[in-house]
Amino acid sequence: MVRTPDSNAGEKRAAGEAAAGMVRDGMVLGLGTGSTVAWTIKKIGEMVEEGMEVLGVPTSYQAQELAIAAGIPLTSLDQDPVLDLAIDGADEIAKDLTAIKGGGAAHAREKVVAASARWFVIVADSSKYVDSLSHPVPVEVLPIAGRLASRRIEELGGSPQIRQAKMKDGPVITDNGNFVIDADFGRIEDPGGLAARLSEIPGVVEHGIFENVNELVVVIDGAVKTFRRE
Amino acid sequence: MVRTPDSNAGEKRAAGEAAAGMVRDGMVLGLGTGSTVAWTIKKIGEMVEEGMEVLGVPTSYQAQELAIAAGIPLTSLDQDPVLDLAIDGADEIAKDLTAIKGGGAAHAREKVVAASARWFVIVADSSKYVDSLSHPVPVEVLPIAGRLASRRIEELGGSPQIRQAKMKDGPVITDNGNFVIDADFGRIEDPGGLAARLSEIPGVVEHGIFENVNELVVVIDGAVKTFRRE
Repeated sequence: MVRTPDSNAGEKRAAGEAAAGMVRDGMVLGLGTGSTVAWTIKKIGEMVEEGMEVLGVPTSYQAQELAIAAGIPLTSLDQDPVLDLAIDGADEIAKDLTAIKGGGAAHAREKVVAASARWFVIVADSSKYVDSLSHPVPVEVLPIAGRLASRRIEELGGSPQIRQAKMKDGPVITDNGNFVIDADFGRIEDPGGLAARLSEIPGVVEHGIFENVNELVVVIDGAVKTFRRE
Repeated sequence: MVRTPDSNAGEKRAAGEAAAGMVRDGMVLGLGTGSTVAWTIKKIGEMVEEGMEVLGVPTSYQAQELAIAAGIPLTSLDQDPVLDLAIDGADEIAKDLTAIKGGGAAHAREKVVAASARWFVIVADSSKYVDSLSHPVPVEVLPIAGRLASRRIEELGGSPQIRQAKMKDGPVITDNGNFVIDADFGRIEDPGGLAARLSEIPGVVEHGIFENVNELVVVIDGAVKTFRRE
């Protein structure tokens, strides 16, 4: 997977900062990973500097470093098992508020954090917002299961590729020590059904299909719009 | 989980050695973990010494050490992605050939190996063979997901306990670096349904319900019996 240079920096900043407006004093927050939510974290840091009290649970080393730099006090899911609000980015989000995440290989922790929150918000620029999902699905697998999972993904109609690293030899290794298979299914007609089939594959730690998105903050035609799940 | 002293050593040896009789020259084998399949590995080692050629894929460090000691040449799922036969033990196996594994915390790798095999055999003494499953289900989870997974298991009607180590402080850490939750559901009426629900929990790496057992080798009333899935 080639991560392209950022052509939507303005939209990312607008969506990311808008989501920070949902944060209230006293909240425990899930802090997502990626270039859009980085603006959310920066904005929350400014609010903390102005006196707001929040605690954050980062979804990755990247989010942790950004939160520390922004001055947001950190906690963990062990100390605070239920979060008020989690904010994260996505690689693709569809009109039915299903999403694909994992371009940053952090989707396992991101999903645990999102599932621990009472309200889960995705922030996105317009390029991520689509009629229906078709982005390759990142699938984190135990290294021993790379070949088995690839075969099973093919049986499900997908085209699997073990993600290769750019700054180390060999495959990308996740924060959990595992591989990521990017599984291209083309247009995904039934995200819930595919999610269930992927979860069943032995050695799959977590796939990147997210079905529990409560709200989307996205920039469309230059304006910030929000969509809530009915 | 207290692992009780071995009261069925004779039955374990009989079942374990009987399963070795299913091995043929040239096979690539999955080698399971535990006190019963240890006898299988030992027996296969004797057959190798007598000239049989096989390759083995171990399911754990324990199985790997036993196989090396027995003189069985090893391979991996990367070199040999499809196995002819996998033999493993179980904590409990029911008459419908569903099983619960994971007392040794190796069930994730065991399931990957079993799912990579054309024929999967469980060896058991009589104490493991039951009308229907009721053993607590070992659930391997990412450490960050310990609390979330415990809550979800409670919502599914189970009683979760993070397995504590005996020879280190704190929780058991699996060969993959994760925690194990022993989830007691009492009598399990629908193993397939529970398996699907457990797989969906964010942060769950692998649960210990096995549904793909092809054949059981078990000692009943002193005699080795085999049962095949219809």
